[in-house]
Amino acid sequence: MVDMKKKIIILGGGFAGVECAKHLQKKLSKSTDIEIILVSEDNFLLFTPMLPQVASGTVQTRNIVIPIRTIIKKVTFYEGRVRHIDPVTRQVSLWGTPEKPGITLEYDYLVVALGSETNFFGMNDLENNAFRMKTLNDAVIVRNRIIDMLEQANNEPDPDTRKSLLTIVIVGGGFAGIETAGELNDFLNDAIKYYPKIIMNDISVKVLEALPSILPGFSPKLAEFTQNQMIQRGIEINLRTAVTGFDGNIVTTKNLDDQTTDILHTKTVIWTAGVTPTNTVKRSIFKTEKGKIIINEYLEADGYKGVFAAGDCALCIDTSTQKPFPPTAQLAEAQAKRIAANLYSLIKNNSMEKFTYAPRGQMAVIGKRTGIVSIFGLNIRGMMAWLLWRNVYLKKMPSMSKRARLLMDWFQDALFDRDISRLKIMRANPIKEYETLQVLDDFW
Amino acid sequence: MVDMKKKIIILGGGFAGVECAKHLQKKLSKSTDIEIILVSEDNFLLFTPMLPQVASGTVQTRNIVIPIRTIIKKVTFYEGRVRHIDPVTRQVSLWGTPEKPGITLEYDYLVVALGSETNFFGMNDLENNAFRMKTLNDAVIVRNRIIDMLEQANNEPDPDTRKSLLTIVIVGGGFAGIETAGELNDFLNDAIKYYPKIIMNDISVKVLEALPSILPGFSPKLAEFTQNQMIQRGIEINLRTAVTGFDGNIVTTKNLDDQTTDILHTKTVIWTAGVTPTNTVKRSIFKTEKGKIIINEYLEADGYKGVFAAGDCALCIDTSTQKPFPPTAQLAEAQAKRIAANLYSLIKNNSMEKFTYAPRGQMAVIGKRTGIVSIFGLNIRGMMAWLLWRNVYLKKMPSMSKRARLLMDWFQDALFDRDISRLKIMRANPIKEYETLQVLDDFW
Repeated sequence: MVDMKKKIIILGGGFAGVECAKHLQKKLSKSTDIEIILVSEDNFLLFTPMLPQVASGTVQTRNIVIPIRTIIKKVTFYEGRVRHIDPVTRQVSLWGTPEKPGITLEYDYLVVALGSETNFFGMNDLENNAFRMKTLNDAVIVRNRIIDMLEQANNEPDPDTRKSLLTIVIVGGGFAGIETAGELNDFLNDAIKYYPKIIMNDISVKVLEALPSILPGFSPKLAEFTQNQMIQRGIEINLRTAVTGFDGNIVTTKNLDDQTTDILHTKTVIWTAGVTPTNTVKRSIFKTEKGKIIINEYLEADGYKGVFAAGDCALCIDTSTQKPFPPTAQLAEAQAKRIAANLYSLIKNNSMEKFTYAPRGQMAVIGKRTGIVSIFGLNIRGMMAWLLWRNVYLKKMPSMSKRARLLMDWFQDALFDRDISRLKIMRANPIKEYETLQVLDDFW
Repeated sequence: MVDMKKKIIILGGGFAGVECAKHLQKKLSKSTDIEIILVSEDNFLLFTPMLPQVASGTVQTRNIVIPIRTIIKKVTFYEGRVRHIDPVTRQVSLWGTPEKPGITLEYDYLVVALGSETNFFGMNDLENNAFRMKTLNDAVIVRNRIIDMLEQANNEPDPDTRKSLLTIVIVGGGFAGIETAGELNDFLNDAIKYYPKIIMNDISVKVLEALPSILPGFSPKLAEFTQNQMIQRGIEINLRTAVTGFDGNIVTTKNLDDQTTDILHTKTVIWTAGVTPTNTVKRSIFKTEKGKIIINEYLEADGYKGVFAAGDCALCIDTSTQKPFPPTAQLAEAQAKRIAANLYSLIKNNSMEKFTYAPRGQMAVIGKRTGIVSIFGLNIRGMMAWLLWRNVYLKKMPSMSKRARLLMDWFQDALFDRDISRLKIMRANPIKEYETLQVLDDFW
């Protein structure tokens, strides 16, 4: 009897995947003939807006993640990395590890919400030497790196080397780049009181952005306010500046106006300048554009009935502008909700509804007690916006326990000094994407 | 003028090193002609008694470490790993990294407090496959491992494999082993409610100990109480059992009474069965016994005036029993205090005092709301001892902010469910102990 159950598989444990599972779980609570399965590489939902705060240590690592199993208790959960999606045989296979065999799951309905990963646009030296700010591990590693630089700089007699150790370059003037720059600048300025040989002037946080302004999604007024605030706090912002390389010591840049090139001495580059869907999506047989799955107005993958895509890996066109919507958590959640409803209609043989979406606004923290918020056509900035940011995100956190912890973190940050303990950890090696076992076999 | 300063170098940032620096800083606060230098591999003091609680997630990672720079603000701090101690030329050299050159420091007085590391007694397969519980990274990695096993076991159809995934073997029935077993057993029992396919019977936590009883330092009564408590909670305790190998899947054991051998199926072995001083101390020219520096009654290294040793790397004989004192934080701190006083006497040309020590007692947490305490000849056990434990260690924590955080962690642990988020991190590679550059050079 169990095998007769219809299976809905959701791939991805980000905002889109978890939201979709939540809504489906609710809608299908009485349908015992349907099993909902969620597959995710991590067993937690990452609260991405607070990543920069983990990088600066204001918020503790585990306080911005919520175990997926605790959110969707009636959904079958698989921790695993998706290897291959076959929409013809309706199968999904997961990567194995030396300790755990791979697995193949069959589905009747599929939701692809595999998100995106950092895009270095083919620049290998940057991929090898730059830091990322996309996952929880990235944020932890950036924090430890910054403290490492402080420790090294404090005992460095040569002033030029000291400056290069304390120059942090952030590539990308979008949300992630600006928030990271603000947090790290605050952290460095607070932390140096424990490093007697480092002076304020040794520190330099630089943002490099190829566009003519930072925060392209916001109103020009808020972007300008942010830029002025950041410059006042000592952050350098270089617009129309493209990064062309980074060997671990020197960043090469190009001014896009006059095409002149320049160099910057630094040991630490944080790359926030682009994302791209994961390889699994790119090499799937779905129709894609720039790696993103092309979807119809019901959010179905072009040509595959009952297969939906949402979030960063789906190409969702705004019919009013004919341009793709920018990839935000808000969009992902709206899509997830629509997909859950459409899937339900499909199962019940009702007709599906088209996806409609109007962004509700956006907000960012740009430094200590300063934020920007754009909502209902209103632009709010400064401390008011910062408080609003904290309020909204605290309410969004779907776990009472983590909410209490976050409040405690913020409270302690206001009361006590920064923690400068440095852990010596690194990202665990991801599973090899292409196994070379066959090649090795030939050796024998 | 600066070069005329006399230099005291303290090697090691554990309880011994930091305590010694604290006392010297106080005593020498008016002596501008003396510089105190502390060298430590990590820039924080690790509060080791709470490591098992980090492994079980009751306490958050960063809440049991205090940045050294914040404790001893007038001491010059070097984050680095000691490469070589030369007591003849009075120099200490630190390892470099590809990014940072090595460095050589000169001293007038030296305190060696380099602690110890896990000792596998030459069993390479255990060294490669077993987990440790000595550093903060070890505890974090053990936590992630246990959650990994839960995730894998939940989707494992074969009951034998599932049992082997959920069998956790802890080698060593001392402090670390018993506390770790208690914490992990509690964690597993709490966490399985989120893993619908795992039942209580699948879980097995086993302690293997070569001696005829656990907790050799405690009174037989408390040890017996602990053993009964743990068995009641489902923990298996195998005495007179030596581990002879572990290939990642199978542990081989030997019963020391009847010399029979046995095997255990498990993927996770946590080794807490021995420590040994670091290589730097072992290959130094100090007189050592079992790797530990032989010290005289003033805690000076045999034959080297003005060079002291304390903590796990020093061989300190109890004159009343003619046996070495067991290596505890308490002993390390008492030695550090005596060394600081003796160093001060040496500098002021006064006579040094002999080291005397009487242990004040000891305590352990053995599971949820249960502890054992032995103090002033009294044996306390159960909830009372558990509360005492928390009180004492909370007071010992030398940071208001961390104390508040710990209280909050404990409060939250009582109120909310366990956090089962698994981070994918690993220990950063240590600096290569023996560089092979010379050999490579021959290639060219």
